[in-house]
Amino acid sequence: MISQLCIVGVGLIGGSIGLAARKFKVAKSIVGMGRRLETLENAVRAGAVDRITTEIADGVREADVVVVCTPVELIPEYVAEIAQHAKADCVITDAGSTKTRIVQECMAILKKAKHGCEFVGSHPMAGSEKNGVDHARAELFQGRPVIVTPSKSNSTRSINQVSQFWQSLGGKVSVMSAREHDQAVAVISHVPHVVATALAASTDNELLTLVAGGWLDTTRIAAADAELWRQILEDNQGHVLKALARFEKVLSSIRAALEEQQSAKLLRLLAAGKRTRDSVGS
Amino acid sequence: MISQLCIVGVGLIGGSIGLAARKFKVAKSIVGMGRRLETLENAVRAGAVDRITTEIADGVREADVVVVCTPVELIPEYVAEIAQHAKADCVITDAGSTKTRIVQECMAILKKAKHGCEFVGSHPMAGSEKNGVDHARAELFQGRPVIVTPSKSNSTRSINQVSQFWQSLGGKVSVMSAREHDQAVAVISHVPHVVATALAASTDNELLTLVAGGWLDTTRIAAADAELWRQILEDNQGHVLKALARFEKVLSSIRAALEEQQSAKLLRLLAAGKRTRDSVGS
Repeated sequence: MISQLCIVGVGLIGGSIGLAARKFKVAKSIVGMGRRLETLENAVRAGAVDRITTEIADGVREADVVVVCTPVELIPEYVAEIAQHAKADCVITDAGSTKTRIVQECMAILKKAKHGCEFVGSHPMAGSEKNGVDHARAELFQGRPVIVTPSKSNSTRSINQVSQFWQSLGGKVSVMSAREHDQAVAVISHVPHVVATALAASTDNELLTLVAGGWLDTTRIAAADAELWRQILEDNQGHVLKALARFEKVLSSIRAALEEQQSAKLLRLLAAGKRTRDSVGS
Repeated sequence: MISQLCIVGVGLIGGSIGLAARKFKVAKSIVGMGRRLETLENAVRAGAVDRITTEIADGVREADVVVVCTPVELIPEYVAEIAQHAKADCVITDAGSTKTRIVQECMAILKKAKHGCEFVGSHPMAGSEKNGVDHARAELFQGRPVIVTPSKSNSTRSINQVSQFWQSLGGKVSVMSAREHDQAVAVISHVPHVVATALAASTDNELLTLVAGGWLDTTRIAAADAELWRQILEDNQGHVLKALARFEKVLSSIRAALEEQQSAKLLRLLAAGKRTRDSVGS
């Protein structure tokens, strides 16, 4: 059991970490840290944290584990400040949707700080198109994949600590490099987001009263925060563009089969998509 | 109340019509018609129909309303056979996902048959990626849009009869031309299907253990029956290709903004998709 857990940024993900940590008795005490007092007060009301502070030093001084759940662009600067005030054996992790740049920058920061505490990157593959602690749930990570992306300078001890932390919240941990992570999420998360957005944006307003389950499902994630996603896409630009090119190639084959009335080919392409989807379940 | 309702093809849609017609007391008796006895026996077990038959003449002779719920390619030939055996005041409708060709062919058939019964095309915008009467639900049409696509030769009486039929099952009826329907569903249903399929098909198998809600939602409809969808896409080829071109154009702008690092433009495009999606709800 962790003596003190500090969550930096108590929105949907941070709040769900707090609720899960309480429910599964992962931490004795949980501090919520953030810039806006109003958000933090909501987190207390939601039962996600025990104590709140807007001061980094105050929030992390006694913490054994710190999880940074801010938008991806802000993670390294938070880690830099946390490292200045944290205990030498503190482990810092995050919940950012991209990893290569974050891990690199955090490693450089901690090396320069010559400090005992470590940063191990992670990414829980759970979330929602909704934001804020009001939508947080203790069960958000239950059975969900969590990717942990250690760097060469991480100790086995801190990699295990971070892996066990997510497991204790209900997650199924996979360990891979930051680069492998970014390649994978470009395909399974970032391209679907771009595609869902393009589908929503290319639908005329006057048709919206007619939409059914298919449109609602395929476009659901387009409702997520646009600024958070701009950061994610730009942060993972190279892999996203490559994965997008691959999607566009498959889409072009389907279009060509339809255009050229190649029924057998069209059926084969539809069946290939069905086979992949069927192998996953709902 | 309808004295006798005949459902031709008792799968997910036909079965749900039967269950809803029973639950909301829309018909005194319901006959299930189809080719395969096994499917029909399942429909009886599921409580979707009162009586079954594999003979069209037997199924429709006493029917006041006949709903054809077969794959789109088969609808006109069923209507041709039904018209030969139905009562003069019988109204035939369907649940096909495309309308222009079906309505045209059915009109030609009924004109040639010089018979009193009418065909009024319709399309309930409800369904599932699952097939078969085992997944049928009485509530499937509750609050869902149903598009009714009359032709010039339809009487007001039969248009009203078909509209009221779907309303009594819980649907919200919109009346439009078959062409307007096909244009609309290309955008809100057929392109999302193609896109979901391309997303699923372009995902490597080894990444499937990592997928989260976003991938699961955007690809869900790719699990639908491939042959049914081949027919739908080919039947609505022109409109689907046009709507697909429009989707690809929006996708290209997002790609270009990401590629050229135009952050403000990327944010604007993401926000436009979010705005459209937010205006609909879950």
